[in-house]
Amino acid sequence: MAADQSQDERFHFALEHRSSATHARAGRFTTPHGVVPTPAFMPVGTRGTVKGALPRDLSEAGATMILANTYHLHLRPGEDVIETLGGLHRFMGWDGPILTDSGGYQVFSLGATCRVDDEGVSFRSIVDGAEVRFTPERVIDIQAKLGADVIMAFDHVPPDPTHRRDVIAATDRTHRWLERCATRWRERGGLDSGQALFGIVQGGAFEDLRRASVDAVCAHDFAGYAVGGVSVGEDREAMLLAVGASAPLLPEDKPRYLMGIGTPIDFFDAVERGIDLFDCVTPTRHARTAQAYTSQGRMNLRNQVWRADPRPLDPDCDCPACSRFSRGFLRHLCVTGEMLGPILLTLHNLRAFHRLMAKMRTAIAEDRLSALRAEVIEPMMRRL
Amino acid sequence: MAADQSQDERFHFALEHRSSATHARAGRFTTPHGVVPTPAFMPVGTRGTVKGALPRDLSEAGATMILANTYHLHLRPGEDVIETLGGLHRFMGWDGPILTDSGGYQVFSLGATCRVDDEGVSFRSIVDGAEVRFTPERVIDIQAKLGADVIMAFDHVPPDPTHRRDVIAATDRTHRWLERCATRWRERGGLDSGQALFGIVQGGAFEDLRRASVDAVCAHDFAGYAVGGVSVGEDREAMLLAVGASAPLLPEDKPRYLMGIGTPIDFFDAVERGIDLFDCVTPTRHARTAQAYTSQGRMNLRNQVWRADPRPLDPDCDCPACSRFSRGFLRHLCVTGEMLGPILLTLHNLRAFHRLMAKMRTAIAEDRLSALRAEVIEPMMRRL
Repeated sequence: MAADQSQDERFHFALEHRSSATHARAGRFTTPHGVVPTPAFMPVGTRGTVKGALPRDLSEAGATMILANTYHLHLRPGEDVIETLGGLHRFMGWDGPILTDSGGYQVFSLGATCRVDDEGVSFRSIVDGAEVRFTPERVIDIQAKLGADVIMAFDHVPPDPTHRRDVIAATDRTHRWLERCATRWRERGGLDSGQALFGIVQGGAFEDLRRASVDAVCAHDFAGYAVGGVSVGEDREAMLLAVGASAPLLPEDKPRYLMGIGTPIDFFDAVERGIDLFDCVTPTRHARTAQAYTSQGRMNLRNQVWRADPRPLDPDCDCPACSRFSRGFLRHLCVTGEMLGPILLTLHNLRAFHRLMAKMRTAIAEDRLSALRAEVIEPMMRRL
Repeated sequence: MAADQSQDERFHFALEHRSSATHARAGRFTTPHGVVPTPAFMPVGTRGTVKGALPRDLSEAGATMILANTYHLHLRPGEDVIETLGGLHRFMGWDGPILTDSGGYQVFSLGATCRVDDEGVSFRSIVDGAEVRFTPERVIDIQAKLGADVIMAFDHVPPDPTHRRDVIAATDRTHRWLERCATRWRERGGLDSGQALFGIVQGGAFEDLRRASVDAVCAHDFAGYAVGGVSVGEDREAMLLAVGASAPLLPEDKPRYLMGIGTPIDFFDAVERGIDLFDCVTPTRHARTAQAYTSQGRMNLRNQVWRADPRPLDPDCDCPACSRFSRGFLRHLCVTGEMLGPILLTLHNLRAFHRLMAKMRTAIAEDRLSALRAEVIEPMMRRL
């Protein structure tokens, strides 16, 4: 019971509202570094920084929890340096909750020529070409040194979610690795270490495999669960199937995290299927290619049409870009390659995503999520 | 008398303190967009943005007046676009005083293959290769559309300040062009246009030519005067001679601006010779190559030695970089090429320069500038 007490104090998910027609829910996820009202979007701070944004700017944009990448931080500067510098929170200058992924996605998808066996994965460092070995135990150890609030199990992400035999093999391996991750995490103190471990459901684009994976992963009592193996820009139907087949089956009293997703329309699709947490490079990466999400549509700020437009990017937005600058100025920054362009668009896109999450949260509380969807999605997804 | 009234209200330099041993002085330069306590350093916002810094960050760093480049803004986005968008203040989102240079320095030195004649200068646009023509009148017209508080006369900067015949020819031309600039500026309303025109003293590295240029330029009653043709990194003795031969001869009741300078040691040298205003890319450009100015010395943040250093960049600094991050984190940002590296070092270097200016101002008021110099310069110029 003592362990349960500790769990409740440090990591706790309070379900606050449920939609009547869908699986959508609003809640509050408590971590040692603060509370995350859900649904929530986590900006991606790949190497310990959300590109171009100061931590105070992220708070101002509405971010509550940030993601950082174990793979990238292990390569540079290394978890030992970060531990010496006081852990990831102090390193990044972010006092709020942090989640680190396990590196599985990067190792298996970012072009690392990796060799996978039952024991783990070997690949070459993109920094210096040295051989790197990730095993479930090592990935937990690395994440322990990084010191995020939430750490992720090491999973095997199959390259093609529709190739059944490969998906079965990768999902089975993910379950065996989860066992080893959980063991190492418990050896290091479990929740008493100040870190919660989330398990990851795999199963590709197959409903039955997703359901089976939920069963296998939920055999462990974790503080939260993730749906993995779903990528942006891939087949939307496959995404909906994968999320729909797994999210509603996950424990009601734990946060559910859809990894690596997505765009505003994805958020509605996934929240309606019971998802609480998101992360994605969409708002930040698109900002660096001059793409803005506004309440009136998506804009390419390099477009000649904005050249002498005195209007703010989004008249409905209160971010630093919209409250002070014209579309004409933002276009000038993007066309001339000035750093302030991606900086301002990053702050804007993050603000747009966080405001959307806040609106969804309110709409769930008022049981009018589908009305909100009808109001905002069509204009938001338009191309201006 | 009515014209004088207007001059006093809009552009006014109040001399507040004088050093007893040198020409150093502290004052307040009033412009339509605010007051600039002097000595002051103006960050350079080449294309309408100080690279990587939001206007609010500049204010926070202590900036009061910003410089923007006529040459770059004429090429992109063009003065007509900026005028349509409400002028440079609104365009840049900077409510404080702005100064635009005349483009002379860029045209003559930035590798533009230019052809100069008595009428003006022709060169090819680095953006689209089109032929561009700058004359004294055109440069005043462009700056009028940009709308800065202070605009600069179009000057001919000779390539070698020690080549007497060339310097004489260029300085004579500068004086003839100054006449034309002043005429066009008066035609456009003079100070009633809301813009003050500053004349520029040339004369290269020759004391007699500098003195003669002061006479020629001060034959015009301007709201301020600049010392031009002195570049960073060139012969320091030549710089001291040029400034020493001209600055003390300029009218006492007008601000004196040393264009394109410099580093902390230059500020002391120039202030002691009577200079009030500076601009330079030093703090911002160096930030982008991982160079920091601190109270303890100059640091290259790419250096391996900072890898696991938990200390702030400068324990004596209150900037966003020093108040939240370690040297280890800043090194990580610089080594991995993260945007936040140049952003934070830019904010730090600017804060360091503005704090130095504030200290110099106080020291002048207390008549202890040489003591301040002895205290701060040796440690600041050290290489850490």
